[in-house]
Amino acid sequence: MTYCVGMTLDRGIVLMSDTRTNSGVDNISVFRKMFHWSNPGERIVALMTAGNLATTQAVVSQLEERNKAPSERHNTLLEAPTMFQVATLVGKLLRDTIRARDEAYGQDASGTFTASIILAGQIKGMEPRLFLIYPEGNFIEASFDTPFFQIGETKYGRPILIRGYDKTMSFEDAVKLMMVSFDSTLKANLSVGLPLDMLVLERDRFEPAHARRITAADPYFRAISEGWADALKHAFNSLPDYSFYNDPEG
Amino acid sequence: MTYCVGMTLDRGIVLMSDTRTNSGVDNISVFRKMFHWSNPGERIVALMTAGNLATTQAVVSQLEERNKAPSERHNTLLEAPTMFQVATLVGKLLRDTIRARDEAYGQDASGTFTASIILAGQIKGMEPRLFLIYPEGNFIEASFDTPFFQIGETKYGRPILIRGYDKTMSFEDAVKLMMVSFDSTLKANLSVGLPLDMLVLERDRFEPAHARRITAADPYFRAISEGWADALKHAFNSLPDYSFYNDPEG
Repeated sequence: MTYCVGMTLDRGIVLMSDTRTNSGVDNISVFRKMFHWSNPGERIVALMTAGNLATTQAVVSQLEERNKAPSERHNTLLEAPTMFQVATLVGKLLRDTIRARDEAYGQDASGTFTASIILAGQIKGMEPRLFLIYPEGNFIEASFDTPFFQIGETKYGRPILIRGYDKTMSFEDAVKLMMVSFDSTLKANLSVGLPLDMLVLERDRFEPAHARRITAADPYFRAISEGWADALKHAFNSLPDYSFYNDPEG
Repeated sequence: MTYCVGMTLDRGIVLMSDTRTNSGVDNISVFRKMFHWSNPGERIVALMTAGNLATTQAVVSQLEERNKAPSERHNTLLEAPTMFQVATLVGKLLRDTIRARDEAYGQDASGTFTASIILAGQIKGMEPRLFLIYPEGNFIEASFDTPFFQIGETKYGRPILIRGYDKTMSFEDAVKLMMVSFDSTLKANLSVGLPLDMLVLERDRFEPAHARRITAADPYFRAISEGWADALKHAFNSLPDYSFYNDPEG
């Protein structure tokens, strides 16, 4: 499994992903699921992947054309004129990659090679944009009403995002909110694991404002993880108490 | 979908379930998923169901033998000598019901008629016990390490249960905790819906300590639902703030 969140804010876009991959609980590994490329001053493009690792690595390699000899390589992500065209390109590669493997493996493959992608970026003169790309290659874009996307193990960490999100929030608050969301997920699903990767795309900056890896030893993440239990208890205690004596039928 | 929680406490067992059933989002209904039977002074048995409604209704009818003429009816749940044997009986009925329908429908049925059950109860002279019964008819029992079970749409409401549960808590606090967990789930998944059913089994009481239905108009549930958003914001704000300046690589 995997957990990735991409969140649009007035100030830009924040991305966070875990790094655990597994083929059964007895076979877990650490792989980066977040990638970014920038042409400083002109554009930055980032993506996060969930699903079959061989599929997602193949997509990233093809985007960078790492399957070609060094002299022939160029990065197609840095050439498309709009983020919509970048999303179209990534979607087509994802669909073609999955389809090629399904065909090679036959009908039994149903779902084995599937994957999905969160894509974020900005090109100079245009708005920052956030997309969710489906295995079929089609995609949707974040909007005022749906300002963040999650992929992978999305449910445990969703309630706090719904309650805590505010598009005017600072990058710092967005990172804090995501860490709480990731902590809830990590506590509930062994197939989501530390370290986490974080990337902040500041509006009109066209290079990473912040990019870092958060390990289990990270003092801030530990403070959040330990503090959240107490904070939730206080929140819970602050709610009015139930009384059976007020039951209409009690 | 469905959401049901059964929770063991030092004081007894608390059960809560939603009432929404659906066959597509354009076809939703309200059906009770919680049932209880008691022989006051001697035993109380309760169960909650998730899964195919025709299957779970058939299981409940068979348990009550409502498929027989009134003169022949008796309630097998009130005759088994131990809760373990009650669980065995319910498990066998569940498995046989699912298997009979699968066979009638053929191989294509895979999963269509499946269902699972949370069973709770106490028989005089023995401890209160809580079981989770799988579609295969086998079951597990709650324990010190795993003191509550969820069935249906379990993920959204799980983090708060993990953080908030304490086996020494009062029935009132347990109801409050469950309401927060249900509220998070209701907010995230349309296929879980109000009203909720609640049942409190107090140790050595052998009849419902409290049994009631919580509707959308319930003032306490509304206070929890509205108060939790603010309480979570306060909890979030009470956590230390993130700072990019402390980043090793920031």
